Amino acid sequence: MIPEIPAFDKTLHDQLCVRISSLAKPPGSLGRMEDLAIRIGAIQNRLKPAAQRALLLVFAGDHGLTEDGVSSYPPAVTTAMVETFLAGRASANAFARAADVDLRVVDAGMATDLSPRPLFIKANVRRGTRNAARTAAMTLEEVDGALARGIALAQSSATEGFDILAFGEMGIGNSASAALVMHRLANIPIDQCVGRGAGHDDDGLARKLAVLRRAAARTSVTDPRQVLAEFGGCEIAMMAGAMIGGAAARRIVLVDGFICTAAALAAVRLVPAARDYFIFAHKSAESGHRLMLEALGADPLLDLQMRLGEGTGAVLAVPMVRAAARLMSEVATLEDVLKATF
Amino acid sequence: MIPEIPAFDKTLHDQLCVRISSLAKPPGSLGRMEDLAIRIGAIQNRLKPAAQRALLLVFAGDHGLTEDGVSSYPPAVTTAMVETFLAGRASANAFARAADVDLRVVDAGMATDLSPRPLFIKANVRRGTRNAARTAAMTLEEVDGALARGIALAQSSATEGFDILAFGEMGIGNSASAALVMHRLANIPIDQCVGRGAGHDDDGLARKLAVLRRAAARTSVTDPRQVLAEFGGCEIAMMAGAMIGGAAARRIVLVDGFICTAAALAAVRLVPAARDYFIFAHKSAESGHRLMLEALGADPLLDLQMRLGEGTGAVLAVPMVRAAARLMSEVATLEDVLKATF
Repeated sequence: MIPEIPAFDKTLHDQLCVRISSLAKPPGSLGRMEDLAIRIGAIQNRLKPAAQRALLLVFAGDHGLTEDGVSSYPPAVTTAMVETFLAGRASANAFARAADVDLRVVDAGMATDLSPRPLFIKANVRRGTRNAARTAAMTLEEVDGALARGIALAQSSATEGFDILAFGEMGIGNSASAALVMHRLANIPIDQCVGRGAGHDDDGLARKLAVLRRAAARTSVTDPRQVLAEFGGCEIAMMAGAMIGGAAARRIVLVDGFICTAAALAAVRLVPAARDYFIFAHKSAESGHRLMLEALGADPLLDLQMRLGEGTGAVLAVPMVRAAARLMSEVATLEDVLKATF
Repeated sequence: MIPEIPAFDKTLHDQLCVRISSLAKPPGSLGRMEDLAIRIGAIQNRLKPAAQRALLLVFAGDHGLTEDGVSSYPPAVTTAMVETFLAGRASANAFARAADVDLRVVDAGMATDLSPRPLFIKANVRRGTRNAARTAAMTLEEVDGALARGIALAQSSATEGFDILAFGEMGIGNSASAALVMHRLANIPIDQCVGRGAGHDDDGLARKLAVLRRAAARTSVTDPRQVLAEFGGCEIAMMAGAMIGGAAARRIVLVDGFICTAAALAAVRLVPAARDYFIFAHKSAESGHRLMLEALGADPLLDLQMRLGEGTGAVLAVPMVRAAARLMSEVATLEDVLKATF
């Protein structure tokens, strides 16, 4: 089921490094934008990459964990926010319009069966997960289904012509699920994985932590498919699949914050070669994000104290990706400039 | 000559804070983007700001200081790079195309008299500055001329419909000039203002520092017009004027790196009220930038280890400004969402 992910071409990588150093500017003077440009060339396997068309996929899912009070918001907010996305009125919509990024919402496993709508992709493998504090959130078959649908979705988006696949999510309770995935796949104590999510106070945080300690103690699985089955959620598993599919299609995979990074971690544990295709957009203010980024060797582009999710951070990084691609492809070399002038 | 700069409306500012807290997302969850959205509303004096059209003005000038070896590049590179901008092939052009930002080059005081070209604005007050290590770089009349032309340029850009004025510069030797301006206007020892610029090695840095110590010792002026006259450059003075003009026209002024920040510092010393209209795009890797930002109470949006200038950092921040404006104007309130759903 898992597609093959091409390794980067070392010769091309060297050529990209030579080219960026030959441009009409002091060597190294564009800092991290140069590294980004090299990586985009390597991802696309082109000395002159082009990255303009971008799609934000917002994966939505519900979480049985909410029964035990892991979120400061009621679970119905997942549906309310999906309706808001589909009405074009959420933060991610505003950011996407500003950056000329297409946005689609994917029902990966919402509790509610919403009516079909343009830009709404029904791909749900179940209607919300079971409560991971008490039992496995999903079956292994559901995990495989979520991965497969994610892969297929990324492949069709690539075929459609999107150069950049940006990831976002919506799901009340999903920072709890992501914390469990992080805990088990990055081998980090659960206490360091749990944060305030959408806005817990100290009591709420303590309650969330107690529930997640119970969930973590319930099983000792470490295999990524099993971890996704035990702890969920549908949207995390489907994002992991779509990230793998994006990498397999040589697309730029833009990872948003805490929950998306948990999906990226699952993807990398499933297929380590996918990591090279992932660009981490921003450091989240969610407390566990830093350690999870470290586990992935990731140093995000932006640090804006954001912790909303929805792909808002990923969308903000899209223009940087576009700029880096054009840097590599369109800027004159120093030699060109000297020839033209002197 | 200096136009009046409107103070922010406190009532509106409060309304903007209320509005951003009422949006359909956890309060504070968009971190610095929320502060940015509030500021954009205050700048435009609107509860629903709109910031789409952006212009990058790249101010070019030459520096007599190069006679004493303050730059690792020959002064003819200013002209060569301006030709490259006009051919659309510099890094700033690539970044500007990626972000849908218009780009124009302003001759503020180049040594070369280039032929007229589309998108090339001749506004030079002299042909390169005198060597500030030995004598005043410009006359006070030239400084006033540069300020006035900058102000007029910003006003005409505002009238043309640009919401965002992004600033960039090109001028071999201008990090030396900027270091002197910083030293004198922020009252920071010259040694802490001098950096490697376009790429000095240790010897080059020591030479640059020795020249700038001499220049600083030559005069004790602290009045901003006099500081600009003594130390230059034409592009720094004209940018300061254009930043003031942008603020007076209630436009978003996007400040790039080290040299632009020196211009912003001069602008703020001339008209303190201008500061509120300035958004600092990025932390430069040029060593003096951090202290100058501190002197201005500025915490830039981006930190990408860039040190090119040209407005490359400012252009990367344009999409963030656009996103923040739309956040304030287009996102549903929590009340809207609850009404629509429940």
